[in-house]
Amino acid sequence: MARRRTKTKVLVAGGSGYAGALAARLVDRHPDFELRAVTSRSDAGRPLTALYPHHRVDAVLEELDIDVHGDVDAAIVAYPHGASAPVVAQLRERGVRVVDLSADFRLNDRAEYERWYGEHGAPELFGCGVYGLPELHREQIAAADLVANPGCYPTATLLALAPLAAAGTIADVVVDAKSGVSGAGRTPSAKTHFVSMAENVVPYNVGAHRHMPEIDQELAILGAPVTTTFTTHLMPLDQGELVSCYVTPAEEWTPAQLDAAYRGWAEDLEFVDIVDTPPGVRDVRDTNVCAIHARADERTGKLFVFAAIDNLWKGAASQALQNLNLMYGLPEATGIEAW
Amino acid sequence: MARRRTKTKVLVAGGSGYAGALAARLVDRHPDFELRAVTSRSDAGRPLTALYPHHRVDAVLEELDIDVHGDVDAAIVAYPHGASAPVVAQLRERGVRVVDLSADFRLNDRAEYERWYGEHGAPELFGCGVYGLPELHREQIAAADLVANPGCYPTATLLALAPLAAAGTIADVVVDAKSGVSGAGRTPSAKTHFVSMAENVVPYNVGAHRHMPEIDQELAILGAPVTTTFTTHLMPLDQGELVSCYVTPAEEWTPAQLDAAYRGWAEDLEFVDIVDTPPGVRDVRDTNVCAIHARADERTGKLFVFAAIDNLWKGAASQALQNLNLMYGLPEATGIEAW
Amino acid sequence: MARRRTKTKVLVAGGSGYAGALAARLVDRHPDFELRAVTSRSDAGRPLTALYPHHRVDAVLEELDIDVHGDVDAAIVAYPHGASAPVVAQLRERGVRVVDLSADFRLNDRAEYERWYGEHGAPELFGCGVYGLPELHREQIAAADLVANPGCYPTATLLALAPLAAAGTIADVVVDAKSGVSGAGRTPSAKTHFVSMAENVVPYNVGAHRHMPEIDQELAILGAPVTTTFTTHLMPLDQGELVSCYVTPAEEWTPAQLDAAYRGWAEDLEFVDIVDTPPGVRDVRDTNVCAIHARADERTGKLFVFAAIDNLWKGAASQALQNLNLMYGLPEATGIEAW
Amino acid sequence: MARRRTKTKVLVAGGSGYAGALAARLVDRHPDFELRAVTSRSDAGRPLTALYPHHRVDAVLEELDIDVHGDVDAAIVAYPHGASAPVVAQLRERGVRVVDLSADFRLNDRAEYERWYGEHGAPELFGCGVYGLPELHREQIAAADLVANPGCYPTATLLALAPLAAAGTIADVVVDAKSGVSGAGRTPSAKTHFVSMAENVVPYNVGAHRHMPEIDQELAILGAPVTTTFTTHLMPLDQGELVSCYVTPAEEWTPAQLDAAYRGWAEDLEFVDIVDTPPGVRDVRDTNVCAIHARADERTGKLFVFAAIDNLWKGAASQALQNLNLMYGLPEATGIEAW
Repeated sequence: MARRRTKTKVLVAGGSGYAGALAARLVDRHPDFELRAVTSRSDAGRPLTALYPHHRVDAVLEELDIDVHGDVDAAIVAYPHGASAPVVAQLRERGVRVVDLSADFRLNDRAEYERWYGEHGAPELFGCGVYGLPELHREQIAAADLVANPGCYPTATLLALAPLAAAGTIADVVVDAKSGVSGAGRTPSAKTHFVSMAENVVPYNVGAHRHMPEIDQELAILGAPVTTTFTTHLMPLDQGELVSCYVTPAEEWTPAQLDAAYRGWAEDLEFVDIVDTPPGVRDVRDTNVCAIHARADERTGKLFVFAAIDNLWKGAASQALQNLNLMYGLPEATGIEAW
Repeated sequence: MARRRTKTKVLVAGGSGYAGALAARLVDRHPDFELRAVTSRSDAGRPLTALYPHHRVDAVLEELDIDVHGDVDAAIVAYPHGASAPVVAQLRERGVRVVDLSADFRLNDRAEYERWYGEHGAPELFGCGVYGLPELHREQIAAADLVANPGCYPTATLLALAPLAAAGTIADVVVDAKSGVSGAGRTPSAKTHFVSMAENVVPYNVGAHRHMPEIDQELAILGAPVTTTFTTHLMPLDQGELVSCYVTPAEEWTPAQLDAAYRGWAEDLEFVDIVDTPPGVRDVRDTNVCAIHARADERTGKLFVFAAIDNLWKGAASQALQNLNLMYGLPEATGIEAW
Repeated sequence: MARRRTKTKVLVAGGSGYAGALAARLVDRHPDFELRAVTSRSDAGRPLTALYPHHRVDAVLEELDIDVHGDVDAAIVAYPHGASAPVVAQLRERGVRVVDLSADFRLNDRAEYERWYGEHGAPELFGCGVYGLPELHREQIAAADLVANPGCYPTATLLALAPLAAAGTIADVVVDAKSGVSGAGRTPSAKTHFVSMAENVVPYNVGAHRHMPEIDQELAILGAPVTTTFTTHLMPLDQGELVSCYVTPAEEWTPAQLDAAYRGWAEDLEFVDIVDTPPGVRDVRDTNVCAIHARADERTGKLFVFAAIDNLWKGAASQALQNLNLMYGLPEATGIEAW
Repeated sequence: MARRRTKTKVLVAGGSGYAGALAARLVDRHPDFELRAVTSRSDAGRPLTALYPHHRVDAVLEELDIDVHGDVDAAIVAYPHGASAPVVAQLRERGVRVVDLSADFRLNDRAEYERWYGEHGAPELFGCGVYGLPELHREQIAAADLVANPGCYPTATLLALAPLAAAGTIADVVVDAKSGVSGAGRTPSAKTHFVSMAENVVPYNVGAHRHMPEIDQELAILGAPVTTTFTTHLMPLDQGELVSCYVTPAEEWTPAQLDAAYRGWAEDLEFVDIVDTPPGVRDVRDTNVCAIHARADERTGKLFVFAAIDNLWKGAASQALQNLNLMYGLPEATGIEAW
């Protein structure tokens, strides 16, 4: 008889938000992970099914207590920016390997962090995170104890632009990003009231979105030291995100060259689909997939790239699992493929 | 040259909610009314266009000050239940004629009021309101100084059932009501978050909806002393309300009899449309119309009646204007017909 | 080393519609089934991902050819009513075990079938199907070679009413059913145009819905020979179905009795959840679960039962898998639990 | 007694589509116009209320018969591109003044027209239309007998960019446009099925949208001979359109300069609102208003301009009325202001 593998014990800290709750579900269904506990600051004591019946995770939300919950192998932390770092620090002290969904460990430049997010909550750990976009940093993630899960917009934008950035061809780029309302979080507000968003589409955080430095940092690492023009829009849907990228190339690209660049790059990427027509966000709903369509526009000489993800999956929770898989030497798609 | 009529000065008290704001717009466009002021407890100081740009009403929300605002001819009061009565009392003392959108003056039985709403805020006025459903109480409304605008569900339900109630044929009735999210009000909550309602439909306040006593009171007056089975459901849309009524008749009705009863009754009703197929709520969007379809179901012997209204229009604001028109001797449709 | 089980070979015939495509996905992910082929009359030659990218099923739709496709163990047939029976007959001749999603084998009374659906396409097989609601007919399904998957509305309605029907307490019942637009099928029409349904809710097929005889047949078998009052409404959402049932009981029920009856009944039912508040359809989205809330209404003496399902899952495709699991002696939840 | 003015008799040809039907409603309510007839190729014989109950226009759709319908003062023609020109020609022969909603008379360059739309249906009239964007061509429109109502996207885009184009500052511009589904027309299709668009956002006609030549033509006339980068996206809502414009300026603009340019330009424009934050499409729903927000982005040096319209109102039907008002010497806002 085959011996049952010992499962990796995983904590989800911050499980009452959309991303944390989905992460709990994915851990719960994962063949090699065991969901040890789900914590929540706002809803401790309530069963997770009271908040998210359709996730069907049989767990009661608990107050985080490091003495109780520190006894795990790994943790997914889904706290707000700023509040996350101290929790991550506590977990790291106990030797827990962490995937953090906040922005606290995404940036390499501390001044830049402080400019966008204020004082850091665990300065001794600043810069210790590996940027957790597996398609760009697979090896470092595998070896890391602290992985900074990317923002949803950077995930889609960086995957959309990676081949062009690596080719050094981005002279200028405009990214017009569109997200479902779940991207705005679970806290009720005038902005997220059903009546405010039904039959609406509205730009928000224009010129001030905190995902911008993260995008520019990673594009520079890839080889494109640009200042991205980046704006965001809320749309009347729940889950889904589309980035429409308009690149002014440093040199001309033929359609064939562009296609070859994208298909060659994506060949070994399990969760990147290069598609023949611009993708809708429904195409990737409830999946870890980023669907990308790139085309050279004859009329203007620009390169258009459209990338669609599910902001709660590839943009947050399932990408956290993808990172955990890499950290534990598992096939990248384990537990997030079959949805 | 024709002399310009002097316009009736109208105050809208409580103009930051959905119904009050729409009432302000309708007064503002009305040929015989002048919008004197719009007050708000929560948003005083802000222009109404900051909250509702598409209404395009050029007014700044003010704190209600009876010494300032009492100098009007008429007022539409759109305060929450309980908070409304004291404001109405102040206005009545100044001789202002009032259409009140709350439930404070809808019920004739004080014990019943207190059971559903708690202590009344102006007991000296209890019972002084005329129930403001023009299709049922046109003459009393015309003579009234205090009109209690009906709830949205009672408006649709009573119009749906009036001919049957008057005929004394309602042995039993089930009313399954469905409303858009604007019916739940403007205050942000988990329930009204876009993500909670997108791709959802959910029963609420089952067995405990405060519109029930109002429905039974008026059905009894019409001749049907029944206890209505009444439930409500939230649907993923902004404006619109449908009531599906299933009547067990005291005696058999042929389709022809039923049709004659409804068409005969509605003949002189400007805002009741008897339609040949069950109406959708889109059919009456942004109108003061109640569209009704009645049919005798051969299979079960029951009578089915479907009635659709716009909950913010006929269910609230435009019905308030309809009442004001009657109170001031104007053609009933003035200012609410052409939308 | 553990030997790999031989998988059951499954055909999905009619895979371009919503239910068939989802069934293909569920078979594709199932640990004990192998998706042999997916056929389509309208879209043969196209990859299934062209129609449903998010299902991520790697199959090209084929013309059904019984000589090619008859060589399977089992088939899920998702043809329209009438067109299904001849295909089922061909498959049965080859010894293929069938779960049929159409109505062709649901009714026991041929005159009743013909009244609602016209001439039957394979009269020799009429009445040979077992009604595939596992919660009611588990043993017969396990032994059957031809299972008639119930309609979506009957699934929710019968589960909602089963304990009351079995107790013989249903003197009368009104069922007000509400469905997402996917229930209307994939064929474009004025009725299913986005603009027709956005901000709308509309009754349809009133007095003439073909799911009615199926409901009455099964309620009678359960012990409640009633003529159900049943109406259907389209709502502005994709997937999800709610039935609101209003039962006039033959005798009084206390809340405790009612609760005991439902919880006792559901105790061994893996996919029936008895819940404490009326469920929204989001609560069961993308699951095989039917969530039920029953309450005795003191005010009227009626019993209210609300049941929510996902019309494409428990109302169609995942229920087909549940039936197949039973037919092949597998745990009922195999392959449909973890979503 | 004041004499009643004689009303201008107006025909709406093509009244079964979204834009034509709304135009019929607006003519019907207009104080100085009389709706003589509404024609339809697809739905002749049906009352307009059967298609659009909420418009509440009491008219039966008729087959167009120039001998019958040619006897009007003016016509709004809402035919598809290509089919429109011959009808316009017939009407012009009778001396009828026309506002045409198709593209047939928008372009000045016939080769360009033929490249995008094929052969022209009335070559003798090619180029005889005045481009009907009142904010740009008020005087010519007033004197015109044939006005080509702009496309919805050009309307929003040209208003968004007019001050910058006139200042000669547009070195490059990317326009990311987003529209509700009504923009795709009333014909049912897979693309406009509710289930296709619910929870979706999808780019369409990328690189090939026929509104592009129209935009470039008018920008050039304004002083900006650019090739606009222009893409379009369908969003899950009914009415509403947002264009997000990213301008690379020829020289630097301070926020104050930009604000002054836009506010100065819009000062006398009744239907252009310069707003302080990026507008949502709900802000202008059911109005003839274009709401514009322009800002200089310090981070990138680009100029961002967001413009929101209702695609069926300012993007089509109410703009047609605005043009008719100008053609008949009426105040521009007559009949389209009060909504």
